[in-house]
Order: sequence, then structure tokens, then C-alpha cells
Amino acid sequence: MSFEVLKTDSATKARLGRLTTSHGVVQTPVFMDVGTQGTVKALEPRDLKENNAQVVLGNTYHLMLRPGAEVITAAGGLHKFMRWDGPILTDSGGFQVFSLAKLRKMTEDGCRFNSHLDGHEFFLGPKESMAMQRVLGSDIAMVFDECLPYPCERDRAEKSVEQTIRWAKASKEQPHAEGQMVFGIVQGGVYDDLRRHCAEELVKIGFDGYAVGGVSVGEPEECMYKAVDASVPYLPEDKPRYVMGLGVMHQMAECVARGVDMFDCVIPTRVARHGTAITRKGNVAIKAAKWTFDQGPVEEGCDCYCCRNFTRSYVRHLLNAGEILGLRLLTIHNVHALNRFMEDMRAAIADGSFAEWKEQVRKDTTHE
Amino acid sequence: MSFEVLKTDSATKARLGRLTTSHGVVQTPVFMDVGTQGTVKALEPRDLKENNAQVVLGNTYHLMLRPGAEVITAAGGLHKFMRWDGPILTDSGGFQVFSLAKLRKMTEDGCRFNSHLDGHEFFLGPKESMAMQRVLGSDIAMVFDECLPYPCERDRAEKSVEQTIRWAKASKEQPHAEGQMVFGIVQGGVYDDLRRHCAEELVKIGFDGYAVGGVSVGEPEECMYKAVDASVPYLPEDKPRYVMGLGVMHQMAECVARGVDMFDCVIPTRVARHGTAITRKGNVAIKAAKWTFDQGPVEEGCDCYCCRNFTRSYVRHLLNAGEILGLRLLTIHNVHALNRFMEDMRAAIADGSFAEWKEQVRKDTTHE
Repeated sequence: MSFEVLKTDSATKARLGRLTTSHGVVQTPVFMDVGTQGTVKALEPRDLKENNAQVVLGNTYHLMLRPGAEVITAAGGLHKFMRWDGPILTDSGGFQVFSLAKLRKMTEDGCRFNSHLDGHEFFLGPKESMAMQRVLGSDIAMVFDECLPYPCERDRAEKSVEQTIRWAKASKEQPHAEGQMVFGIVQGGVYDDLRRHCAEELVKIGFDGYAVGGVSVGEPEECMYKAVDASVPYLPEDKPRYVMGLGVMHQMAECVARGVDMFDCVIPTRVARHGTAITRKGNVAIKAAKWTFDQGPVEEGCDCYCCRNFTRSYVRHLLNAGEILGLRLLTIHNVHALNRFMEDMRAAIADGSFAEWKEQVRKDTTHE
Repeated sequence: MSFEVLKTDSATKARLGRLTTSHGVVQTPVFMDVGTQGTVKALEPRDLKENNAQVVLGNTYHLMLRPGAEVITAAGGLHKFMRWDGPILTDSGGFQVFSLAKLRKMTEDGCRFNSHLDGHEFFLGPKESMAMQRVLGSDIAMVFDECLPYPCERDRAEKSVEQTIRWAKASKEQPHAEGQMVFGIVQGGVYDDLRRHCAEELVKIGFDGYAVGGVSVGEPEECMYKAVDASVPYLPEDKPRYVMGLGVMHQMAECVARGVDMFDCVIPTRVARHGTAITRKGNVAIKAAKWTFDQGPVEEGCDCYCCRNFTRSYVRHLLNAGEILGLRLLTIHNVHALNRFMEDMRAAIADGSFAEWKEQVRKDTTHE
């Protein structure tokens, strides 16, 4: 397990990197595909390979509730359970406990909560989260943290950051799966000094990588960049940096320009299920009447299975008829589109054109 | 376009055949996969090829309503629209008009009805059905007929059979797509003499193949075999025979023993969406608690993508979590299972062991 910065952009802080995990090498910057319940929704492992997915993200909260640790243990870990032999990153479950579950009680050790599925009571803290991530056998485990909502009062943010730091330390001290890296998570909301403080304390503890958490939680776009700017400069150059929950093309490019290496988001799979294609010209609603007779592919120039074979007219029909194949084809396209986008980004960093490339992406995808 | 009987079983009336269409050769007996709305539900054309599907069935009623003839015309026909380059059989829409639509009025020319989707008014008769099937460009078109319900009074059945015969004649007289075969449909309900009369009149008109319709509509299993026995002997030896809407393993084997060559049914895709696997040991409810920790495949010895890669424990988890991948994997398995079943049936006819093979199938799949 190692991380190597292969090149740093001269005009920005963008880096080209190589993250070596127990299940293979990851080229960074990387977008990671979210497989919440042990599957990237509607896709098979072979689809992920075919569309150049590098890392799958598993959700500790969801997998702890269903199917549960015993079933994953019986399978020999998440890789074997879902038959994905590439790298897996698991989150800590903290975000879902605070957003999905009915919270019963928070203590120094963690949170007692009721499952959003059936009300069954669970306890999740640094110890339980790391134990579950050990069962999952992920290549990268995330520390248990508290993800602050937006907006959040200064008082609450201060207390929360201290809790996050203590939980990070406790998470680090737990036993981990063999070859499992552990990443810390910088919190602090919109308060620059809290972000810096949190980052510095995490670095003292020492992690294999560092995430910026608590962004993309409803705050204005500028606040997100500000949170990244308030965190990244205090993180070590030789470790990967990961902005959690982000998957919008121009926003990822902006974060990469600030020195970020990793992203994840449910966007490509979720919007596909609503009939939206992600393209280099922005999002396209394929259900729209204007595509009724359109014989072109979902995205011109795309070489995914969907675009190589089917017309907008056909995919639109499938979506309007409620056919599973429609959302599957769009999911394939969207996953392909984001992974291809990151490939192009890496190529732009490699050949020194990243700054211009990033501006072109902003113009093309936001139409601003 | 031709049909050749390669071998007839010595102990039964089972035939091994070869049906040549504009889009390739079909080995019979064959099970045809139903692609109601321009897709075999949850599957791509490459999945169909990978799982040895030979023929896709398209539903004229559904495709006429949505996306409609204009969209299919713009695509250049159903093969191009859905990117399936193998043989396609289209039904006439009659069955759906009488079962799904709100029927407004039936005349000598056909039926005026309201779409089950939005109430929009349509007219479908021999002329309109054949015109739509011409647009679809199927390799095999079915005549427009009236499918009788079960049970049905003798009086009504008599009148209906005469209507079906007149509509069959009218269907034959319409222009057809280039290279399109047209099959007649024997109706007559449970009345043997009406079945025989219908079969004989259809043979006088002359078709490329003959279907037995109005079975598998809720009647007892014995009535179904009786209807087949009352129809098949009056059909020409040198034309394919098709029992519509049938997809249960031992029932197909029984019909093949009676000289039937072709089947179709929504069973493999529909039961998959409800968590049921079709196996040579009968149907298996994969959601059942007993599979929670099971590390075996959905069906031992099956070489489909699902069984080669995933455990019952994993597929059960996906189904219980409402993941699309779960029903997709079971759909792949079920389609594979039925196509493999027909392959084995053809091998049994070829090597002269069909009669014993059929009895073994009955024992294994019905546990009787």
C-alpha cells in the first residue's frame, strides 16, 4: 500500500498519482463508483471493468443493517460477496447514522440508533465501524466521524470537530484488516480555522490518506471550494486527498486544481434512474419529447455499450415505458462518462493542459 | 424461409426441426423469449446471445401504443430499434386487445378499443395488425384472431371460431414485409370439433406455420393437452407448430411429444422479478431465509453468468434489498435455464431418448 505523486501541474495544484492497494493500482485523480448495498446499482462487476471503474465504494451502515456482518463473514468479505476483485473503499457509516437512521443517543463511544429499514436497534462508533470495515475487508477504511449539517452554529461545530478528532484517534487504534489503509476525515463546516485545526490534529495522528468531509451537503458551491481550500493545504503532499460525496464534472475539476485526488458520488447511478444522461455538454433529459425520433446516440462520440448500440429514440422509449433496460443503459453510460472524464483529466494533467481543459469543462458542462 | 423436419421421434410425435428465417436459422423445438415493449425485460441483446436465445417475441399491441408505428418506422423496424439481429416473431395484438384494453366495439373489421395506458382510442383488426407487423418487420407475423377466455359457452365459441377464420383469411390477404412468414392460429376453446374445423379451414387458406392459441388461459393442464391433441393432427407435417403462451418445462415437453415445435412465455422474466429461479429441480424462491448463508450458485451445474459468479446468499441479499441487479441476475439465469432446457430436449430427440427424458423432467420439476 503506497501513494506516489507522479506529476504536479505547474499552473494549478493538480496532481497525477498512483495509489497501490491490496487489490490493484488506482490512477488518480479518480472517481469512485458507489455500491451502497453491495452492488453499483443495476451494474455487474463485468460492467464496471468494461467501463473502466477503478474503485467501488461500499457503505458500512447499509451493509451492517443488511445483509449484516455474519453474511459478509460467511462469504469471506465484501470482495468475494459481490465478486469485485478491484479496490474497495468503505465509509464509516457515520454520515448515514446522522442522515438516515433515527438517532437514539450519542455518547463518547458512538451512537445508538434505530435502523431506517425496520427500527431494529444498532450501536455504531469507532470500534464498531472499524470492526465492520474489517469484516468487509475493504482496501481503504474511513474513520468514524460526525458529518455536520449545513448550516451549523459555531458552538456546535467546535464541539463536533473535537469529537471527530477523538473518534479519528480511536478509529486508528482499532485493529484493521490485513493490508487495509485508513483515511482520516477533516470536518469543521464553513469555519476555516476549525478545518485547519482538524486537519492538523489528524496529521498528528497519522493516516494513509485524508478526506474532506461535510461538503456537498447543501451548501453553496463557493462554500465547498472554501472548505477544500481551508483543509488541503494542511494535509501532507505525499498522501491521497479525497473529497467525499462529490461527482459533478466541473466541481471535481475545481477540487483537483486545489490538490484533491479522489471523489465518490451516487450521481451517475441515481440520475440515470431518473432518465438523465451525464455528458460533456451537461446533463440531458433523455425522456424529453424532442428525442422521440432521434437516431443519434445518448452522447455523440461516446464509446460505451449504450452509445455504441442504441439511439436516443430507443432509450427514451424504454425509460418512458418503465423498462429496467432503459435505466441500466443510462447507468452504463453515466458510469462510463465519469470514468472517461477522469481519464481525460489525467491526460490533461500529464500533458500540461489541465488549466485550459478545466475552463473548457466548466464552459461546456455548465453553459456559463 | 423454410421449415425442415430433421428427425421424428419413434416413441412420440416429437420432431427435431430447422426453421430458416430472414434473420437466421432456428433450431426447433424452441422456446422464444418475450420482449413485450421492445426489450426482453432487464436484458440486452448481448445477454440474449450469451444465453442462447434464438427468437425474440415482440407484442404488436404494446408497440403500437408505445412508442407507436412512426417511431419504429423512423428506426427502420424493430430489429434495428432494439438492436436484435436474430429472428423476431410478432403476435397480432388480438390477445392484448381482449385482455388488457378497454374494448369499445367489435365489428367484422376488428376492434375499437381504448389504450390501457392513457385511454387513447385505437382500432385493430386484420388490416391494422398486419400493417403494424409490416412496420415492425418481424420474421414471423401472426394472424389477427380472437382468443377465447376459459371457460366459454359453445355458442360463443362457434361464432368466435368463424370470426377467427375470416380474420385469418383477411390477415393472409394483406401485404406483408419482405421475407415475412405468416402463421395462422387455431382457436376453438375446449371444443374438439371446433379446434379441428378451425385447423382444417386454416390449412385450406395456407400458412407458413400454425399456432394453437387460447391455451394456458387458466384452464386445467389436461384441457391444454386436449386442445393440442384436437388441433395438431390436422396441421401439415411440414410446417412448424407453435403453442402460444406456454413456458413450463414439463408442459412444453408434453406438447413436444404431441408434435409441437415452438413456445413462448413471459414466465422466465416475470418470475425472476418476483425472486423465483427456474431450475431442473423445480422453481426455487431465492428470497427464502434458508439461503441466507448459502455459498452455492442459484442452480448447481448451471453455467450462466449468474451461477458462474454469484452465491444464493448474495442474490438473496440483492432481491431483499430491492436491488435491480438481483432481478437481472435471476432473469439471466431463467432465460439461460429455459434455452438450455430446449437444447437438452433437442439432444434427447436426436439421440432417441426423448420419451425417458420427458418422464425424468416431469419427476424432477413437478416432484410428482
